[in-house]
Amino acid sequence: MAAPIEFWFDFSSPYGYFGSRRIEGIADKHGRAVRWRPFLLGVLFQTTGQSPLLNQPLRGPYARRDIERTSRLYGVPFRLPDQFPFSSVAPARLFYWLDQRDPAAAVAYAKAVYARAFGEGRAVIGAEESAEIAAALGHDRGECLAALQKPEVKQRLKEINDEALSKGVFGSPFFIVDGEPFWGHDHLDQVERWMATGGW
Amino acid sequence: MAAPIEFWFDFSSPYGYFGSRRIEGIADKHGRAVRWRPFLLGVLFQTTGQSPLLNQPLRGPYARRDIERTSRLYGVPFRLPDQFPFSSVAPARLFYWLDQRDPAAAVAYAKAVYARAFGEGRAVIGAEESAEIAAALGHDRGECLAALQKPEVKQRLKEINDEALSKGVFGSPFFIVDGEPFWGHDHLDQVERWMATGGW
Repeated sequence: MAAPIEFWFDFSSPYGYFGSRRIEGIADKHGRAVRWRPFLLGVLFQTTGQSPLLNQPLRGPYARRDIERTSRLYGVPFRLPDQFPFSSVAPARLFYWLDQRDPAAAVAYAKAVYARAFGEGRAVIGAEESAEIAAALGHDRGECLAALQKPEVKQRLKEINDEALSKGVFGSPFFIVDGEPFWGHDHLDQVERWMATGGW
Repeated sequence: MAAPIEFWFDFSSPYGYFGSRRIEGIADKHGRAVRWRPFLLGVLFQTTGQSPLLNQPLRGPYARRDIERTSRLYGVPFRLPDQFPFSSVAPARLFYWLDQRDPAAAVAYAKAVYARAFGEGRAVIGAEESAEIAAALGHDRGECLAALQKPEVKQRLKEINDEALSKGVFGSPFFIVDGEPFWGHDHLDQVERWMATGGW
Protein backbone atom coordinates (compact mmCIF):
# COMPACT_ATOMS: atom_id res chain seq x y z
CA MET A 1 0.00 0.00 0.00
CA ALA A 2 1.24 3.45 -0.85
CA ALA A 3 2.25 5.81 1.95
CA PRO A 4 -0.55 7.45 3.95
CA ILE A 5 -1.73 10.97 3.28
CA GLU A 6 -0.61 13.24 6.08
CA PHE A 7 -3.59 15.36 7.12
CA TRP A 8 -2.55 18.29 9.31
CA PHE A 9 -5.30 20.33 10.94
CA ASP A 10 -6.23 22.43 13.93
CA PHE A 11 -9.35 21.51 15.90
CA SER A 12 -10.37 25.19 15.84
CA SER A 13 -10.20 25.43 12.02
CA PRO A 14 -13.43 25.42 9.96
CA TYR A 15 -11.55 24.54 6.80
CA GLY A 16 -9.79 21.77 8.69
CA TYR A 17 -13.23 20.44 9.59
CA PHE A 18 -14.28 20.47 5.94
CA GLY A 19 -11.05 18.65 5.09
CA SER A 20 -11.80 16.02 7.72
CA ARG A 21 -15.13 15.32 6.06
CA ARG A 22 -13.62 14.66 2.64
CA ILE A 23 -10.11 13.28 3.10
CA GLU A 24 -11.03 9.68 3.85
CA GLY A 25 -13.21 9.30 0.78
CA ILE A 26 -10.44 10.67 -1.38
CA ALA A 27 -7.81 8.49 0.28
CA ASP A 28 -9.95 5.37 -0.09
CA LYS A 29 -10.33 5.89 -3.82
CA HIS A 30 -6.58 5.80 -4.19
CA GLY A 31 -5.84 3.00 -1.75
CA ARG A 32 -4.30 5.26 0.85
CA ALA A 33 -4.60 5.53 4.58
CA VAL A 34 -4.87 8.91 6.30
CA ARG A 35 -2.48 9.97 9.02
CA TRP A 36 -4.45 12.43 11.16
CA ARG A 37 -2.20 15.09 12.64
CA PRO A 38 -3.87 17.80 14.73
CA PHE A 39 -1.48 20.62 15.59
CA LEU A 40 -1.67 24.11 17.05
CA LEU A 41 -1.99 26.67 14.31
CA GLY A 42 -1.57 29.47 16.85
CA VAL A 43 1.93 28.30 17.65
CA LEU A 44 2.82 28.33 13.95
CA PHE A 45 1.44 31.87 13.70
CA GLN A 46 4.45 32.92 15.78
CA THR A 47 6.57 31.95 12.79
CA THR A 48 4.31 33.08 9.96
CA GLY A 49 3.15 36.33 11.57
CA GLN A 50 -0.44 35.40 10.72
CA SER A 51 -3.43 35.70 13.06
CA PRO A 52 -6.83 33.99 13.29
CA LEU A 53 -8.44 34.48 9.88
CA LEU A 54 -11.95 35.37 10.96
CA ASN A 55 -10.72 38.26 13.09
CA GLN A 56 -8.91 39.95 10.21
CA PRO A 57 -10.27 43.04 8.42
CA LEU A 58 -11.66 42.23 4.94
CA ARG A 59 -10.34 38.66 5.05
CA GLY A 60 -12.51 37.76 8.05
CA PRO A 61 -15.90 38.76 6.58
CA TYR A 62 -14.96 37.06 3.32
CA ALA A 63 -13.94 33.88 5.13
CA ARG A 64 -17.27 33.73 6.99
CA ARG A 65 -19.08 33.91 3.67
CA ASP A 66 -16.76 31.41 2.00
CA ILE A 67 -17.14 28.96 4.89
CA GLU A 68 -20.93 29.05 4.68
CA ARG A 69 -20.72 28.69 0.90
CA THR A 70 -18.32 25.76 1.22
CA SER A 71 -20.62 23.98 3.67
CA ARG A 72 -23.51 24.30 1.23
CA LEU A 73 -21.42 23.23 -1.77
CA TYR A 74 -20.25 20.02 -0.10
CA GLY A 75 -23.43 19.40 1.88
CA VAL A 76 -21.52 19.42 5.18
CA PRO A 77 -23.51 20.71 8.18
CA PHE A 78 -21.80 23.74 9.65
CA ARG A 79 -22.29 26.04 12.62
CA LEU A 80 -19.67 28.47 13.80
CA PRO A 81 -18.88 27.60 17.45
CA ASP A 82 -20.35 29.82 20.16
CA GLN A 83 -16.81 30.78 21.13
CA PHE A 84 -14.49 31.22 18.21
CA PRO A 85 -11.64 30.77 17.74
CA PHE A 86 -11.19 28.47 20.73
CA SER A 87 -8.00 27.04 22.19
CA SER A 88 -7.45 23.60 20.75
CA VAL A 89 -4.65 22.57 23.11
CA ALA A 90 -6.66 20.13 25.25
CA PRO A 91 -8.35 18.11 22.46
CA ALA A 92 -5.06 17.96 20.55
CA ARG A 93 -3.22 16.61 23.60
CA LEU A 94 -5.92 14.07 24.23
CA PHE A 95 -5.86 13.00 20.60
CA TYR A 96 -2.20 12.00 20.85
CA TRP A 97 -2.67 10.27 24.17
CA LEU A 98 -5.39 8.14 22.55
CA ASP A 99 -3.30 7.75 19.40
CA GLN A 100 -0.49 6.08 21.28
CA ARG A 101 -2.91 3.50 22.64
CA ASP A 102 -5.21 3.04 19.66
CA PRO A 103 -4.86 5.12 16.48
CA ALA A 104 -8.38 4.25 15.28
CA ALA A 105 -9.84 5.49 18.57
CA ALA A 106 -7.92 8.73 18.16
CA VAL A 107 -9.44 9.27 14.69
CA ALA A 108 -12.92 8.61 16.07
CA TYR A 109 -12.17 11.14 18.79
CA ALA A 110 -11.02 13.73 16.27
CA LYS A 111 -14.24 13.32 14.32
CA ALA A 112 -16.30 13.69 17.49
CA VAL A 113 -14.47 16.88 18.45
CA TYR A 114 -15.07 18.35 15.00
CA ALA A 115 -18.71 17.23 14.98
CA ARG A 116 -19.33 19.05 18.22
CA ALA A 117 -17.35 22.17 17.32
CA PHE A 118 -18.55 22.77 13.77
CA GLY A 119 -21.50 20.43 13.36
CA GLU A 120 -23.24 21.53 16.57
CA GLY A 121 -21.46 24.84 16.94
CA ARG A 122 -20.23 24.22 20.48
CA ALA A 123 -16.60 25.15 21.17
CA VAL A 124 -14.44 22.42 22.69
CA ILE A 125 -12.55 24.22 25.40
CA GLY A 126 -10.30 22.89 28.09
CA ALA A 127 -9.77 19.54 29.77
CA GLU A 128 -13.33 18.95 31.01
CA GLU A 129 -15.00 19.25 27.64
CA SER A 130 -12.25 17.37 25.87
CA ALA A 131 -12.52 14.48 28.32
CA GLU A 132 -16.32 14.51 28.11
CA ILE A 133 -16.18 13.85 24.37
CA ALA A 134 -13.78 10.96 24.92
CA ALA A 135 -16.02 9.57 27.65
CA ALA A 136 -18.97 9.56 25.27
CA LEU A 137 -16.86 7.30 23.05
CA GLY A 138 -16.27 4.85 25.90
CA HIS A 139 -12.97 6.09 27.28
CA ASP A 140 -12.50 6.60 30.99
CA ARG A 141 -13.15 10.22 31.81
CA GLY A 142 -10.89 10.28 34.86
CA GLU A 143 -8.04 8.68 32.97
CA CYS A 144 -8.40 11.26 30.22
CA LEU A 145 -8.34 14.12 32.71
CA ALA A 146 -5.27 12.65 34.38
CA ALA A 147 -3.55 12.17 31.01
CA LEU A 148 -4.03 15.83 30.15
CA GLN A 149 -1.91 16.77 33.17
CA LYS A 150 1.02 14.54 32.29
CA PRO A 151 4.25 16.21 31.18
CA GLU A 152 4.84 13.55 28.53
CA VAL A 153 1.41 14.24 27.00
CA LYS A 154 2.18 17.95 26.85
CA GLN A 155 5.61 17.17 25.46
CA ARG A 156 4.16 14.98 22.72
CA LEU A 157 2.11 17.86 21.29
CA LYS A 158 5.15 20.12 21.39
CA GLU A 159 7.06 17.56 19.35
CA ILE A 160 4.19 17.31 16.88
CA ASN A 161 4.20 21.06 16.43
CA ASP A 162 7.95 20.99 15.87
CA GLU A 163 7.38 18.30 13.26
CA ALA A 164 4.75 20.46 11.56
CA LEU A 165 7.16 23.39 11.47
CA SER A 166 9.99 21.26 10.11
CA LYS A 167 7.72 20.04 7.32
CA GLY A 168 6.67 23.54 6.36
CA VAL A 169 3.09 23.19 7.58
CA PHE A 170 1.62 26.65 8.23
CA GLY A 171 -2.13 26.40 7.70
CA SER A 172 -5.13 24.16 8.31
CA PRO A 173 -5.86 21.91 6.61
CA PHE A 174 -2.50 20.99 5.12
CA PHE A 175 -1.94 17.76 3.21
CA ILE A 176 1.29 15.98 2.36
CA VAL A 177 1.24 13.24 -0.26
CA ASP A 178 4.48 11.44 -1.03
CA GLY A 179 6.39 14.49 0.20
CA GLU A 180 4.32 16.97 -1.84
CA PRO A 181 2.65 19.69 0.29
CA PHE A 182 -0.83 21.06 -0.42
CA TRP A 183 -2.29 23.87 1.64
CA GLY A 184 -6.01 24.36 2.03
CA HIS A 185 -9.29 22.60 1.62
CA ASP A 186 -9.41 24.15 -1.87
CA HIS A 187 -6.40 22.04 -2.84
CA LEU A 188 -8.08 18.69 -2.21
CA ASP A 189 -8.83 18.32 -5.92
CA GLN A 190 -5.11 18.66 -6.58
CA VAL A 191 -4.30 16.17 -3.81
CA GLU A 192 -6.54 13.70 -5.60
CA ARG A 193 -5.06 14.46 -8.98
CA TRP A 194 -1.55 14.09 -7.57
CA MET A 195 -2.33 10.56 -6.40
CA ALA A 196 -4.12 9.66 -9.64
CA THR A 197 -1.30 10.85 -11.88
CA GLY A 198 1.77 10.40 -9.71
CA GLY A 199 2.38 14.15 -9.91
CA TRP A 200 2.97 16.64 -12.69
CA MET B 1 -26.17 39.52 -21.65
CA ALA B 2 -25.53 38.84 -17.99
CA ALA B 3 -23.34 41.23 -16.01
CA PRO B 4 -19.58 41.04 -16.56
CA ILE B 5 -17.29 39.16 -14.21
CA GLU B 6 -15.21 41.61 -12.21
CA PHE B 7 -11.61 40.43 -12.32
CA TRP B 8 -9.47 42.22 -9.73
CA PHE B 9 -5.72 41.66 -9.86
CA ASP B 10 -2.34 43.20 -9.17
CA PHE B 11 0.22 43.30 -11.98
CA SER B 12 2.82 41.98 -9.53
CA SER B 13 0.76 38.90 -8.59
CA PRO B 14 1.67 35.48 -10.02
CA TYR B 15 -1.75 34.07 -9.15
CA GLY B 16 -3.33 37.12 -10.78
CA TYR B 17 -1.36 36.24 -13.91
CA PHE B 18 -2.70 32.68 -13.83
CA GLY B 19 -6.20 34.09 -13.39
CA SER B 20 -5.71 36.33 -16.42
CA ARG B 21 -4.90 33.32 -18.53
CA ARG B 22 -8.09 31.47 -17.64
CA ILE B 23 -10.80 34.02 -16.90
CA GLU B 24 -11.77 34.83 -20.49
CA GLY B 25 -12.28 31.20 -21.47
CA ILE B 26 -14.47 30.68 -18.44
CA ALA B 27 -16.43 33.88 -19.05
CA ASP B 28 -16.96 33.02 -22.74
CA LYS B 29 -18.47 29.67 -21.87
CA HIS B 30 -21.12 31.42 -19.81
CA GLY B 31 -21.80 34.36 -22.11
CA ARG B 32 -20.11 36.86 -19.85
CA ALA B 33 -17.71 39.72 -20.46
CA VAL B 34 -14.76 40.33 -18.14
CA ARG B 35 -14.20 43.65 -16.44
CA TRP B 36 -10.43 43.85 -15.87
CA ARG B 37 -9.60 45.75 -12.71
CA PRO B 38 -5.93 46.03 -11.78
CA PHE B 39 -5.41 47.48 -8.33
CA LEU B 40 -2.59 47.90 -5.83
CA LEU B 41 -2.51 44.98 -3.44
CA GLY B 42 0.17 46.74 -1.37
CA VAL B 43 -2.28 49.53 -0.52
CA LEU B 44 -4.84 46.98 0.63
CA PHE B 45 -2.17 45.33 2.81
CA GLN B 46 -2.37 48.47 4.96
CA THR B 47 -5.90 47.38 5.86
CA THR B 48 -5.40 43.61 6.02
CA GLY B 49 -2.00 43.66 7.74
CA GLN B 50 -0.70 41.21 5.16
CA SER B 51 2.65 41.43 3.35
CA PRO B 52 4.00 40.11 0.04
CA LEU B 53 3.40 36.37 0.15
CA LEU B 54 6.71 35.16 -1.25
CA ASN B 55 8.67 37.00 1.43
CA GLN B 56 6.86 35.30 4.31
CA PRO B 57 8.39 32.49 6.40
CA LEU B 58 6.92 29.05 5.56
CA ARG B 59 4.22 30.57 3.35
CA GLY B 60 6.77 32.01 0.90
CA PRO B 61 8.62 28.78 0.10
CA TYR B 62 5.32 26.95 -0.20
CA ALA B 63 3.94 29.60 -2.56
CA ARG B 64 6.99 29.33 -4.83
CA ARG B 65 6.42 25.62 -5.11
CA ASP B 66 2.68 25.99 -5.57
CA ILE B 67 3.15 28.62 -8.29
CA GLU B 68 5.49 26.38 -10.27
CA ARG B 69 3.10 23.47 -9.80
CA THR B 70 0.15 25.60 -10.92
CA SER B 71 1.98 26.69 -14.06
CA ARG B 72 2.66 23.08 -14.96
CA LEU B 73 -0.90 21.97 -14.17
CA TYR B 74 -2.48 24.57 -16.44
CA GLY B 75 0.29 24.61 -19.04
CA VAL B 76 0.90 28.32 -18.55
CA PRO B 77 4.50 29.46 -19.12
CA PHE B 78 5.90 31.01 -15.96
CA ARG B 79 9.08 32.72 -14.85
CA LEU B 80 9.40 34.64 -11.63
CA PRO B 81 10.43 38.21 -12.54
CA ASP B 82 14.07 39.21 -12.01
CA GLN B 83 12.87 41.73 -9.44
CA PHE B 84 10.03 40.51 -7.29
CA PRO B 85 7.71 41.76 -6.01
CA PHE B 86 7.83 44.89 -8.15
CA SER B 87 5.82 48.10 -7.81
CA SER B 88 2.81 47.87 -10.07
CA VAL B 89 1.79 51.53 -9.76
CA ALA B 90 2.90 52.66 -13.23
CA PRO B 91 1.36 49.86 -15.31
CA ALA B 92 -1.87 50.10 -13.30
CA ARG B 93 -2.11 53.85 -13.91
CA LEU B 94 -1.42 53.41 -17.59
CA PHE B 95 -4.04 50.68 -17.80
CA TYR B 96 -6.77 53.05 -16.64
CA TRP B 97 -5.59 55.84 -18.90
CA LEU B 98 -5.91 53.46 -21.83
CA ASP B 99 -9.17 52.10 -20.47
CA GLN B 100 -10.85 55.50 -20.59
CA ARG B 101 -9.96 55.82 -24.29
CA ASP B 102 -10.40 52.21 -25.40
CA PRO B 103 -11.23 49.38 -22.96
CA ALA B 104 -10.12 46.66 -25.40
CA ALA B 105 -6.73 48.34 -25.77
CA ALA B 106 -6.40 48.39 -21.99
CA VAL B 107 -7.05 44.65 -21.80
CA ALA B 108 -4.45 44.01 -24.51
CA TYR B 109 -2.05 46.14 -22.50
CA ALA B 110 -2.75 44.19 -19.31
CA LYS B 111 -2.00 40.94 -21.09
CA ALA B 112 1.25 42.35 -22.48
CA VAL B 113 2.35 43.51 -19.02
CA TYR B 114 1.64 40.08 -17.55
CA ALA B 115 3.32 38.30 -20.48
CA ARG B 116 6.48 40.26 -19.91
CA ALA B 117 6.43 39.99 -16.11
CA PHE B 118 5.55 36.33 -15.67
CA GLY B 119 5.93 34.84 -19.14
CA GLU B 120 9.40 36.30 -19.74
CA GLY B 121 10.29 36.93 -16.12
CA ARG B 122 11.10 40.61 -16.56
CA ALA B 123 9.68 42.95 -13.92
CA VAL B 124 7.67 45.90 -15.23
CA ILE B 125 8.95 48.78 -13.17
CA GLY B 126 8.24 52.45 -13.48
CA ALA B 127 7.02 54.77 -16.19
CA GLU B 128 9.64 53.98 -18.85
CA GLU B 129 9.02 50.25 -18.95
CA SER B 130 5.27 50.66 -18.66
CA ALA B 131 5.22 53.07 -21.60
CA GLU B 132 7.53 50.86 -23.63
CA ILE B 133 5.04 47.99 -23.46
CA ALA B 134 2.24 50.31 -24.57
CA ALA B 135 4.40 51.62 -27.42
CA ALA B 136 4.97 48.07 -28.64
CA LEU B 137 1.17 47.83 -28.95
CA GLY B 138 1.03 50.96 -31.12
CA HIS B 139 0.38 53.63 -28.50
CA ASP B 140 2.40 56.81 -28.47
CA ARG B 141 5.22 56.43 -26.00
CA GLY B 142 5.49 60.14 -25.26
CA GLU B 143 1.78 60.45 -24.64
CA CYS B 144 1.89 57.50 -22.25
CA LEU B 145 4.79 59.02 -20.32
CA ALA B 146 2.95 62.32 -20.12
CA ALA B 147 -0.24 60.59 -18.97
CA LEU B 148 1.58 58.91 -16.10
CA GLN B 149 2.43 62.35 -14.70
CA LYS B 150 -1.13 63.66 -14.77
CA PRO B 151 -2.89 64.20 -11.42
CA GLU B 152 -6.17 62.84 -12.80
CA VAL B 153 -4.47 59.61 -13.87
CA LYS B 154 -3.00 59.17 -10.40
CA GLN B 155 -6.37 60.07 -8.90
CA ARG B 156 -8.14 57.46 -11.02
CA LEU B 157 -6.07 54.61 -9.57
CA LYS B 158 -6.70 55.92 -6.05
CA GLU B 159 -10.43 55.78 -6.72
CA ILE B 160 -10.11 52.26 -8.10
CA ASN B 161 -8.32 51.16 -4.96
CA ASP B 162 -11.03 52.75 -2.84
CA GLU B 163 -13.57 50.84 -4.90
CA ALA B 164 -11.67 47.60 -4.30
CA LEU B 165 -11.64 48.27 -0.57
CA SER B 166 -15.35 49.11 -0.51
CA LYS B 167 -16.11 45.83 -2.29
CA GLY B 168 -14.07 43.80 0.16
CA VAL B 169 -11.32 42.91 -2.31
CA PHE B 170 -8.14 41.97 -0.43
CA GLY B 171 -6.20 39.56 -2.60
CA SER B 172 -5.19 38.87 -6.18
CA PRO B 173 -6.90 37.52 -8.14
CA PHE B 174 -10.33 38.30 -6.78
CA PHE B 175 -13.49 37.67 -8.78
CA ILE B 176 -16.98 39.09 -8.29
CA VAL B 177 -19.89 37.44 -10.10
CA ASP B 178 -23.35 38.95 -9.66
CA GLY B 179 -22.19 40.38 -6.34
CA GLU B 180 -20.67 37.11 -5.10
CA PRO B 181 -16.96 37.39 -4.15
CA PHE B 182 -14.40 34.67 -4.85
CA TRP B 183 -10.82 35.03 -3.74
CA GLY B 184 -7.96 33.23 -5.42
CA HIS B 185 -7.08 31.44 -8.60
CA ASP B 186 -8.07 28.24 -6.78
CA HIS B 187 -11.66 29.48 -6.69
CA LEU B 188 -12.08 29.73 -10.46
CA ASP B 189 -13.84 26.37 -10.53
CA GLN B 190 -16.38 27.79 -8.09
CA VAL B 191 -16.72 30.97 -10.16
CA GLU B 192 -17.61 28.77 -13.10
CA ARG B 193 -20.02 26.68 -11.09
CA TRP B 194 -21.67 29.80 -9.71
CA MET B 195 -22.44 31.00 -13.22
CA ALA B 196 -23.57 27.57 -14.38
CA THR B 197 -25.96 27.03 -11.46
CA GLY B 198 -26.94 30.55 -10.51
CA GLY B 199 -25.41 30.01 -7.08
CA TRP B 200 -25.96 27.54 -4.25
